[in-house]
Amino acid sequence: MNEFDLIEQYFKPLTQGHDDLKDDAAVLEIPKDHELVVTSDTLNEGVHFFEGETPENIARKSLRVNLSDLAAMGAKPFSYQLNLALNKPDKNWLAAFTKTLLEEQKYYGIFCSGGDTTSIKGGLLSLSITALGIVPKGKALRRSGAKDGDLIIITGPVGDAYLGLCALKNNIDPSKYPKAIERYRLPRPRILEIQGITEYIHAAADISDGFLADLGHICEASSLWSITKLDNFVYSQEMQAALGEGLVKPLEPLGKGDDYELVLAVPPKHAKTVMEHLKAQNCTPMIIGEFTGDQEKQALMENEKKVFAGPDTGWTHF
Amino acid sequence: MNEFDLIEQYFKPLTQGHDDLKDDAAVLEIPKDHELVVTSDTLNEGVHFFEGETPENIARKSLRVNLSDLAAMGAKPFSYQLNLALNKPDKNWLAAFTKTLLEEQKYYGIFCSGGDTTSIKGGLLSLSITALGIVPKGKALRRSGAKDGDLIIITGPVGDAYLGLCALKNNIDPSKYPKAIERYRLPRPRILEIQGITEYIHAAADISDGFLADLGHICEASSLWSITKLDNFVYSQEMQAALGEGLVKPLEPLGKGDDYELVLAVPPKHAKTVMEHLKAQNCTPMIIGEFTGDQEKQALMENEKKVFAGPDTGWTHF
Repeated sequence: MNEFDLIEQYFKPLTQGHDDLKDDAAVLEIPKDHELVVTSDTLNEGVHFFEGETPENIARKSLRVNLSDLAAMGAKPFSYQLNLALNKPDKNWLAAFTKTLLEEQKYYGIFCSGGDTTSIKGGLLSLSITALGIVPKGKALRRSGAKDGDLIIITGPVGDAYLGLCALKNNIDPSKYPKAIERYRLPRPRILEIQGITEYIHAAADISDGFLADLGHICEASSLWSITKLDNFVYSQEMQAALGEGLVKPLEPLGKGDDYELVLAVPPKHAKTVMEHLKAQNCTPMIIGEFTGDQEKQALMENEKKVFAGPDTGWTHF
Repeated sequence: MNEFDLIEQYFKPLTQGHDDLKDDAAVLEIPKDHELVVTSDTLNEGVHFFEGETPENIARKSLRVNLSDLAAMGAKPFSYQLNLALNKPDKNWLAAFTKTLLEEQKYYGIFCSGGDTTSIKGGLLSLSITALGIVPKGKALRRSGAKDGDLIIITGPVGDAYLGLCALKNNIDPSKYPKAIERYRLPRPRILEIQGITEYIHAAADISDGFLADLGHICEASSLWSITKLDNFVYSQEMQAALGEGLVKPLEPLGKGDDYELVLAVPPKHAKTVMEHLKAQNCTPMIIGEFTGDQEKQALMENEKKVFAGPDTGWTHF
């Protein structure tokens, strides 16, 4: 089976009739009065997912981490480019991988506009997706948009993906932390949940590097500081158990990535609207602090006292 | 040096001020009355370039193969996303790689709108670029646009990249085929040369899979056949020498990829305009046949006789 047969059989259905992959490139019409939002994520086997992870989970994770970036911009999904470097094509693997992508496409409202399928030396997959979104002109959410006094809202509990990773790495009985493991394997981008409330939000970031790191990105871009109230965090039941048993240390959930919840800067007058919308979307949002223009007020607070995060506040690659 | 320092020092300059890489995604305004053209190419070390190839040549080749796809669509370069999976960042390597990309960007009129830099297991690089171009609405060149009677024009000699690869693989004295080796290492996309004449062209493809394969793609998409006159091909001096010595077999240059010249379908009344424009751009264009709606006339012709290509008519990955 050569490259062209692969494209015809497995990848062409992903275009959902938008293009036939037979041109050198896709031609896309961006809706009037909209801007394009572009993001890329690369996932490598053995780094971003375990070696031998199922094609279904790889398909879902690789698309979803990109959708999460679009969500953080307040954008709607449009199309994506799929770049796949694999050692040897396995028909069953490709069939499962592309079948899952098609399911995801239909759920999230996005189609595949093209890509490249290549051979790589060594046995490990490398997969890059570039996702395109659209947003009405001038309405993209920027990290730089937060204002002094905005509330910090997160769309759901943090740290669960890290707990899932811990459980897998330490060979802990998977039945003990099933939801956390599922969260690590299958991020849930808040791309559909955020639609309809972006006008009430000043700034957003997805929690991919870790809550503290991603909050820090908003602060830095907006020239603000944050007051974070640890008492306001509600952790998942599994995380509460893991904290109780010492598998996860206090504060660690705030420093670990891969959660793909969103951290939002919301003016107090719109907080109720945003919270209620998110709850109606089956999120578990929390108001966990506020942004401040006064550097002196910057703090992690617990029981009205200042505490400090450890040095490990975010995931970096190197 | 962590991921964020890497981005700040090496990748931020590539945005040329268009975006600061601090948001989750880039926001791009597509000029009014234009469509977006999107293409992706993945290059893997040891497959698309030799192991240990210089960062300068990797940078140039990876961007240029994408620009060649935009050229085939009649598009102008707009921006690109850079997805880099590397074992361990080396400062000298990254400095040389990004310096070269910036030079290329300025030459071709494109900027980096974002990307991802990740760690990969094993020592070999994998690099994906998704390039965005723009084209006035409805004016993209499609492979399906060729008409019965259109002339087949190529923008320059074919096979030189293959000759360069042969020379390198067979450890032939590099001074014997210096231009061919350079062509293999450094494709020259015809993206600037094609500007201004796209309105005279019915269809185009870049010769990345091999002349016969890429011509075949146009024929298939346009439901036409081709009459190709081998006598009309003028090979480079180095190719003529290699053919004479038997390093390259007759017809082989027509089946090998990586040349990144364009094959065009041009109505006879515009052939002179197209040829003269390309010559003025320092190309060596040739009219090497015509498209036909009559399957019976399909042929490779030599000295007015039909000949046939061997089975190896194009590069596929698997």
